[in-house]
Amino acid sequence: MCLEGIIAATEILKHGGDAGDAVEEAVRIVEDFPLYKSVGYGGLPNENCEVELDAAFMDGDTLSFGAVGGIRDFKNPVSIARKLSHEKFNIFLVGSGAEEYAHKNGFERKNMLTERAKKTWEKRVKEIYEKNLSPYDGHDTVGIVCLDKKGHMTAATSTSGLFMKKRGRVGDSPICGSGLYVDSQIGGAAATGLGEDIMKGCLSYEAVRLMESGIDPQQAAEKAVFNFSEKLKQRSGKAGAISLVCLNNKGEWGVGTNVEFSFVVATGVSMPKVYLAHPENGKVIFEEASEEWLQEYQRKITRPV
Amino acid sequence: MCLEGIIAATEILKHGGDAGDAVEEAVRIVEDFPLYKSVGYGGLPNENCEVELDAAFMDGDTLSFGAVGGIRDFKNPVSIARKLSHEKFNIFLVGSGAEEYAHKNGFERKNMLTERAKKTWEKRVKEIYEKNLSPYDGHDTVGIVCLDKKGHMTAATSTSGLFMKKRGRVGDSPICGSGLYVDSQIGGAAATGLGEDIMKGCLSYEAVRLMESGIDPQQAAEKAVFNFSEKLKQRSGKAGAISLVCLNNKGEWGVGTNVEFSFVVATGVSMPKVYLAHPENGKVIFEEASEEWLQEYQRKITRPV
Repeated sequence: MCLEGIIAATEILKHGGDAGDAVEEAVRIVEDFPLYKSVGYGGLPNENCEVELDAAFMDGDTLSFGAVGGIRDFKNPVSIARKLSHEKFNIFLVGSGAEEYAHKNGFERKNMLTERAKKTWEKRVKEIYEKNLSPYDGHDTVGIVCLDKKGHMTAATSTSGLFMKKRGRVGDSPICGSGLYVDSQIGGAAATGLGEDIMKGCLSYEAVRLMESGIDPQQAAEKAVFNFSEKLKQRSGKAGAISLVCLNNKGEWGVGTNVEFSFVVATGVSMPKVYLAHPENGKVIFEEASEEWLQEYQRKITRPV
Repeated sequence: MCLEGIIAATEILKHGGDAGDAVEEAVRIVEDFPLYKSVGYGGLPNENCEVELDAAFMDGDTLSFGAVGGIRDFKNPVSIARKLSHEKFNIFLVGSGAEEYAHKNGFERKNMLTERAKKTWEKRVKEIYEKNLSPYDGHDTVGIVCLDKKGHMTAATSTSGLFMKKRGRVGDSPICGSGLYVDSQIGGAAATGLGEDIMKGCLSYEAVRLMESGIDPQQAAEKAVFNFSEKLKQRSGKAGAISLVCLNNKGEWGVGTNVEFSFVVATGVSMPKVYLAHPENGKVIFEEASEEWLQEYQRKITRPV
């Protein structure tokens, strides 16, 4: 779902633009797109049919950080998070307090519940009732790490969180060190999956720390995800879905995941490409997505509910 | 402010009690005490004169974690956090969603704004207006790490956060890896200070990781605090107050701080003692608090507003 956003960010970076502007623009495009059902407009609602959004922004030069949790009906949570990152105090705001701040700072209001998301919610409620299911089903986040020509690194996330979550539930996405982390002198990481489990391992911080210790982004991402999945299984019997993208300050990247996972990479010399990854024998295997896969994805997000 | 709580927890542990029960009881006592102006009942309000509370609980055996952010008018936020730590989904709840969960789960309601806290708020509002000050003044958290006879470790935090904070502001206290972290196979840590800066360094996670690398809790606490304070100063020109307590799974402890800081330690062989710490030439110096200091503290928290 990042493809269009990454294409736009690549244009900004190509013309010498800043990593802060590029990552914000990329996330805004994902937030604005109505068919991505886990981010921004069109994101799936909580158990009360309210779309509650989490987003964060981090600057790898200054380590400035800003985030919102459980915010409703603002068009671009990532921009509110970026604005908060310029503050010294009150950088992480949640619920109605976050909405108050966004209102006072002129951010655009928008009813973020689409007809499609409402239908999906109604269908799910019926299914849960009829089949006596656990309500929680599906979570996905846009998380991007960015490096510009001047060596400035940034990271940002945005999500509607766990589908059918309880009101006020906050996942890993707006949590510094869990959903994202970036230090321009090392590199950055962003995570997606079951936020409840990701935050128990501070996985984005851990991946950056592993890159700092000298290992490359691919090893760092694999190690962070596999080691912590294994630890969680040993300690509590199970580990949720965890995926992580990493980028170091030389522009080398890596991916860690314990499930099937798709992501997008663009560099100064290659156009944005969609990749598919999955775990296999303690390693992560990834390859470029085929034309068929891309078409099937397109079909899936547009099919009637 | 932890002294009474630690005395009660020590009694529980002495009789073979569980680290989860001990840490919860210790924090509850601090929450219940009206004169500690940064935790629970009597905690200082936000800019709108609302007491918004953050709390978290972590289990070092299972790595289970639960937290609430910006919750109003419940007597013991730490107990709500502990209850959430038993869930697989929705373990971090904020604002009115957290209140809804607490209500549905039978937690005790209480108006957490005391007459004294209201007076302090009114005085501060006047001061800010008259002297044209930045409103933010004072933050302090109860953060406890606990080890029981069976080797079970836990950690918990509770705070009313930054005095005069914006509505919905969440600090480091309910953030896994920032305000607290614990792993019974290594050790645990809890932080207090300017939450905005603590979360940028994932300092509790970092301290535990340092202990895992083989260094003792005192070195781990100093290194985590000093290295990150230094980094923040280099990157953004300033670093807020940061203090950290550490305990490993052998019962050895340490303290890191870049300001004056008081804390309490109890062990199987010594009664709870209050210590004072401060940074000096790249080290942390600490000593037992004198009788005079304890009396002055008592005088300070009880004097008329």
